[in-house]
Amino acid sequence: MKPFLVLLILLVTAAESISIPHVRGFLGHFAGSRLRNNAGAALHAAQYETRYFRQRLDHFSFAELPDFNQRYLVGTTAGLWTPPAPIFFYCGNEGDIEWFSENTGFVWEIAPSFSALVVFAEHRYYGLSMPFGSKEEAYKDAKSLSYLTTEQAIADFATLITDLKRNMSAEDSPVVLFGGSYGGMLAAWMRLKYPHIAIGALASSAPILQFENISPPESFYDIVSSDFKRESVNCFDVIKNSWDVLEAQGKYGDGLISLSGKFRLCKDLNNTEQLSDWLDSAYSYLAMVDYPYASSFLMPLPAYPIKEVCKKIDGFPDGTDILDRVFAGVSIYYNYTGSVDCFDLEDDPHGMSGWDWQACTEMVMPLSSRKESSMFPPYEFDYPAFADECIQSYGVRPRPTWVTTEFGGHDISTVLKKFGSNIIFSNGLLDPWSGGGVLQNISHSIIALVTKLGAHHIDLRSSTTDDPKWLVELRETEIKLIKGWINDYYQDKAFTAYSIIPLFI
Amino acid sequence: MKPFLVLLILLVTAAESISIPHVRGFLGHFAGSRLRNNAGAALHAAQYETRYFRQRLDHFSFAELPDFNQRYLVGTTAGLWTPPAPIFFYCGNEGDIEWFSENTGFVWEIAPSFSALVVFAEHRYYGLSMPFGSKEEAYKDAKSLSYLTTEQAIADFATLITDLKRNMSAEDSPVVLFGGSYGGMLAAWMRLKYPHIAIGALASSAPILQFENISPPESFYDIVSSDFKRESVNCFDVIKNSWDVLEAQGKYGDGLISLSGKFRLCKDLNNTEQLSDWLDSAYSYLAMVDYPYASSFLMPLPAYPIKEVCKKIDGFPDGTDILDRVFAGVSIYYNYTGSVDCFDLEDDPHGMSGWDWQACTEMVMPLSSRKESSMFPPYEFDYPAFADECIQSYGVRPRPTWVTTEFGGHDISTVLKKFGSNIIFSNGLLDPWSGGGVLQNISHSIIALVTKLGAHHIDLRSSTTDDPKWLVELRETEIKLIKGWINDYYQDKAFTAYSIIPLFI
Repeated sequence: MKPFLVLLILLVTAAESISIPHVRGFLGHFAGSRLRNNAGAALHAAQYETRYFRQRLDHFSFAELPDFNQRYLVGTTAGLWTPPAPIFFYCGNEGDIEWFSENTGFVWEIAPSFSALVVFAEHRYYGLSMPFGSKEEAYKDAKSLSYLTTEQAIADFATLITDLKRNMSAEDSPVVLFGGSYGGMLAAWMRLKYPHIAIGALASSAPILQFENISPPESFYDIVSSDFKRESVNCFDVIKNSWDVLEAQGKYGDGLISLSGKFRLCKDLNNTEQLSDWLDSAYSYLAMVDYPYASSFLMPLPAYPIKEVCKKIDGFPDGTDILDRVFAGVSIYYNYTGSVDCFDLEDDPHGMSGWDWQACTEMVMPLSSRKESSMFPPYEFDYPAFADECIQSYGVRPRPTWVTTEFGGHDISTVLKKFGSNIIFSNGLLDPWSGGGVLQNISHSIIALVTKLGAHHIDLRSSTTDDPKWLVELRETEIKLIKGWINDYYQDKAFTAYSIIPLFI
Repeated sequence: MKPFLVLLILLVTAAESISIPHVRGFLGHFAGSRLRNNAGAALHAAQYETRYFRQRLDHFSFAELPDFNQRYLVGTTAGLWTPPAPIFFYCGNEGDIEWFSENTGFVWEIAPSFSALVVFAEHRYYGLSMPFGSKEEAYKDAKSLSYLTTEQAIADFATLITDLKRNMSAEDSPVVLFGGSYGGMLAAWMRLKYPHIAIGALASSAPILQFENISPPESFYDIVSSDFKRESVNCFDVIKNSWDVLEAQGKYGDGLISLSGKFRLCKDLNNTEQLSDWLDSAYSYLAMVDYPYASSFLMPLPAYPIKEVCKKIDGFPDGTDILDRVFAGVSIYYNYTGSVDCFDLEDDPHGMSGWDWQACTEMVMPLSSRKESSMFPPYEFDYPAFADECIQSYGVRPRPTWVTTEFGGHDISTVLKKFGSNIIFSNGLLDPWSGGGVLQNISHSIIALVTKLGAHHIDLRSSTTDDPKWLVELRETEIKLIKGWINDYYQDKAFTAYSIIPLFI
């Protein structure tokens, strides 16, 4: 296992697909119709039209480059909606926007009570928003990928909103941004960079501090580990001890073959690292989606999936092989429905992943695993090695300090205490990404909402009948804050016209 | 005369040089040693070292492009300066940074009392900060010029500051931005976009609202006109009536030749428009530099130069030819020292101007002249014609709404009332650019300082013994506000470490 980064991975069936440069992911890009039914969700189905907007490839230069079509979804309430009623704008993540729309029921659910228009905008280079006409062309090489950056994506959103408002005579409509995970980072950053375009942002599970040395690089794996430990110390210990066993077993004569059999792999292993990565992914994603109800965001899973994994691991009689326990555990993640015949570690239906590129350019988020507190093998993030892999894989050199130069992060409390307003950073402490999140209030209107039992952007999901009280309350707080922003905005609009008093010296 | 835009023009001796697309300028780019002695100024001489910093050509993409060297000046107090004492950073305008340094004595003068390090950074594509190795290569065509944008320039500053602070172990030093005119726009925009890099900005005479329909397009010429009218209604009338006379005279058989003689031109006119533009420039620049003391910022000029021009125009006996009056008037501007033998309207020692490109791409600032209040010929800004000229001249299509998408401007009071902090917008109402400036306080820390008798960024100039009381007071107010920002910052740094209280739901 090489936990350089836990970023996007293109799991669609049951595989960790990217071998270089060993990036793993947020909860992105798991497109596929079978994933689109959320257990317990869909109390309010999203109804939208799909539209396309012509975007510049490079907003910040005048280089002659081909435009591309950005896909966006507009709620079918568009016809009924009357400016200056608000616009709720979801900042698309690293994946198909329809999939994010379907997993962000919160926005669709609350929009009617605000009389708001809902827009979900797709991120460039994902889904159907491909420069150069096709994914194949867009992902061809470093040259074609070079405009896949967050600043360009945010500028896409800014341009799209400006155009939409102009075309709908909605210049006075306040825009509220929403986003989860990477999309939450975009929402927060966009509110900071484009306050004239959006009056506020709900940034859910957005690890904007997971750069350089701002947050401890160990927090991600520490949190995953403690999520398991809180369910069962034995479960944590089994997993922690399994890596050496696996490693040792792989070294025997036909150890790799026997491991491949034990883990029901479709193809025999070439090395134990492939298997470690696959296990690592399962635990990490389980921690992200450790929801209190059954869901199928990434995989079809029961409620409290880590509890179920640990039940399995702990449930065997004494003396059971440690790898049998581990396999049974991760099968909850990879094969809860029991329909998988064999597991394909090489499966990569999406080809080169856009997030891999982003991780190798701007989104350099160092992750380490510390011996004492982590159930994963110890590992220290090694930037030079990481950079070498990026150069080798993409022909691109990362710019590891660019994100903090462009968007800040160091000493964020001092910087934003008297600058900026109207941002909610919501984080659940079960979510391994919460270690890189904003967990403290910065000012009276840059607010941190922290829930002890929340997982990755659970607040953005559709409400379910199984929602715990803290989740219902969290959403109520968010709604109240957003209402406050909108009311303030309407008041200010009326107010400023009469309050302008010039200061002459 | 075609007052499309009053932007940068490369006057060095006595010429308006740019014929297409008829742009005229801020007070930029008048490099030349003879201009470097400010009458009455230089109480504190700037002492600096010149350094260079390797910059990316495109900060917002990973396109493989050659780096370039950005020039910057660092006060020689660098050795004595001790972090976390402040850094005063001047955002270079559209011209040679040495020239701006020499004309921004205020920053050099006040730095010692703040124990501040002074840095003046040159804007890309100006002075010696040339991409592609030389001005010739940088200005070759639309392709080579395409990275000459404000966003890139501001990102240069952000990157430079971040690197400087890191190298000098000055991460905790607060940075205050300074800028005048276009440099003031950059300073204000940079504070808004990079609050984590600079704690505040003094934006002097920064017409950030001179875009689209935010400010009336007529304000520029109205202010120039009223500057003349307040000195003398007759002077205003003479100038206002002169255009038709000039036009009519040009139509006679050898009218152009006789006009060329009357105005002592080195080369005969091809059309009257050339002459109108030359006169227009003189009046516009006179309004900008209508300082209360002798100066040689653009041209060697007496104190209150408009008063002197009008004295000339008014001083002739009744019956004097109107064009003789006008010529005598503008000679105050173009030939105050009396050393010019003939005037060269075609003179363009600097070749293609970077500002022309900027005006044809992002900096589309519509200017019109209205019949009633302006002493200039009536003109309505014609965007399609303007765009056509840009396409013809540079092969580039302007993006006239991009600046407001990227930086805002519309309804700025509502937007920034509860967002952002620590910006001073200073404007003098004699300055024609003040019409596009922020003239009202936006919040308790986004402040407008307006002086009735100030011209273009007079506050940034070196103090002189002839400074009027209001100017001394204006600077005192600025110093007080900047001190407040710095003190707040130091307090916050100490404070936040002890005040973090997490909010759990």
